[in-house]
Amino acid sequence: MNILITSGGTSEKIDQVRSITNHSTGQLGKIISEQFLDAGFSVTLVTTPTAIQPNVHPRLTKVIINDVAELQTVLEKETPTHQLLIHAMAVSDYSPVYMSGFQAVKETPNLEQFLHQTNQESKISSEEDYQVLFLKKNPKLISWVKTWNPEIRLVGFKLLVDVSQNQLLSVARASLEKNQAEMIVANDLSEIQDGKHRAYLVTKDAVQIAETKLEIAQEIYRHITNKG
Amino acid sequence: MNILITSGGTSEKIDQVRSITNHSTGQLGKIISEQFLDAGFSVTLVTTPTAIQPNVHPRLTKVIINDVAELQTVLEKETPTHQLLIHAMAVSDYSPVYMSGFQAVKETPNLEQFLHQTNQESKISSEEDYQVLFLKKNPKLISWVKTWNPEIRLVGFKLLVDVSQNQLLSVARASLEKNQAEMIVANDLSEIQDGKHRAYLVTKDAVQIAETKLEIAQEIYRHITNKG
Repeated sequence: MNILITSGGTSEKIDQVRSITNHSTGQLGKIISEQFLDAGFSVTLVTTPTAIQPNVHPRLTKVIINDVAELQTVLEKETPTHQLLIHAMAVSDYSPVYMSGFQAVKETPNLEQFLHQTNQESKISSEEDYQVLFLKKNPKLISWVKTWNPEIRLVGFKLLVDVSQNQLLSVARASLEKNQAEMIVANDLSEIQDGKHRAYLVTKDAVQIAETKLEIAQEIYRHITNKG
Repeated sequence: MNILITSGGTSEKIDQVRSITNHSTGQLGKIISEQFLDAGFSVTLVTTPTAIQPNVHPRLTKVIINDVAELQTVLEKETPTHQLLIHAMAVSDYSPVYMSGFQAVKETPNLEQFLHQTNQESKISSEEDYQVLFLKKNPKLISWVKTWNPEIRLVGFKLLVDVSQNQLLSVARASLEKNQAEMIVANDLSEIQDGKHRAYLVTKDAVQIAETKLEIAQEIYRHITNKG
């Protein structure tokens, strides 16, 4: 079984010197990669430049990407030759479209025009006291995975912040169905700290709880190999 | 002489999972730190979590910060006990104030109200096709350095993108005067690649050109110790 894993967080450029970044150390993706490598599988890890990386391994191939557009290209190419995707990457929801000084925005009757402009500057000017950044929703790549490879097994992730356990599980179950995943690993940022990482591994008929990144990796591994 | 050096790039949070980050590897600040450590000076390095770090050294003290507010606190505390500040950090020009769906912005007659709101959510919702982020200018900390310590020697940096050499030098000279710096290291992102890093070291009566990060560090060192 060839395994495709994503880790780290994507960045979307505002201009040549600034971007919007989704936080993710890459630590969990590293541990999951090592879990499968140690068990003899081949792993393709799609990750980001600042993410923590697994050690070099003869059965590990790394692909470094920066943003959602690059991630899409890589996933579209790699999913057909892999039998499992574990999509742990923190993917940017939105990408910058246009940045403007506040005054120009305030004086423009039709704000829609800013959704179809592009900054020509390489480094956007920083004179005005306030600026306005217009952002466009990125495609949800996880929902396209099965169109690229209907046979691939899919483990998705859902990170929320400060929600109830019920809400977290409900969002995870919706994602499970919508994306035809066999597992969604649901976690709340407020339960990730000091070496602890609580996660709910949600499948169609069960919920497993893990308390550390290593337990998450082990539970995913057990689930995949028991059913594989 | 106690030397204060800043390196890396600051990040300003949009919410608990996203931020706007200024790109900087921290490599130049690392090399400058090593130049002064090797020569027997004590260095306090103010840097960011993902920046490349110098090796551990008995005369090196590191302070890790994330955003401009934290940088301000540290600089205000540290400048009075240092004789030189080399401010190589890429500092965020703007910080997020409020993020809203596009529809709500479009339907609000008085856009100023968004400049005085705060998001209550820990993770801002990602349902709408377009979002709007309002940003406020950060204080230019370099202009406050001499008020915290009028005696401190100051080396500033200016990064522009795709400008003429004349424009770069003119912006550097303006910064030299405005911030009462004794040197501004001016560079253009388009001239930083593949191990090369062209910089113009602008002082009141001269311009030195350096072609690599090591040359930049050596030229700063030579200037400081010749005049010290």
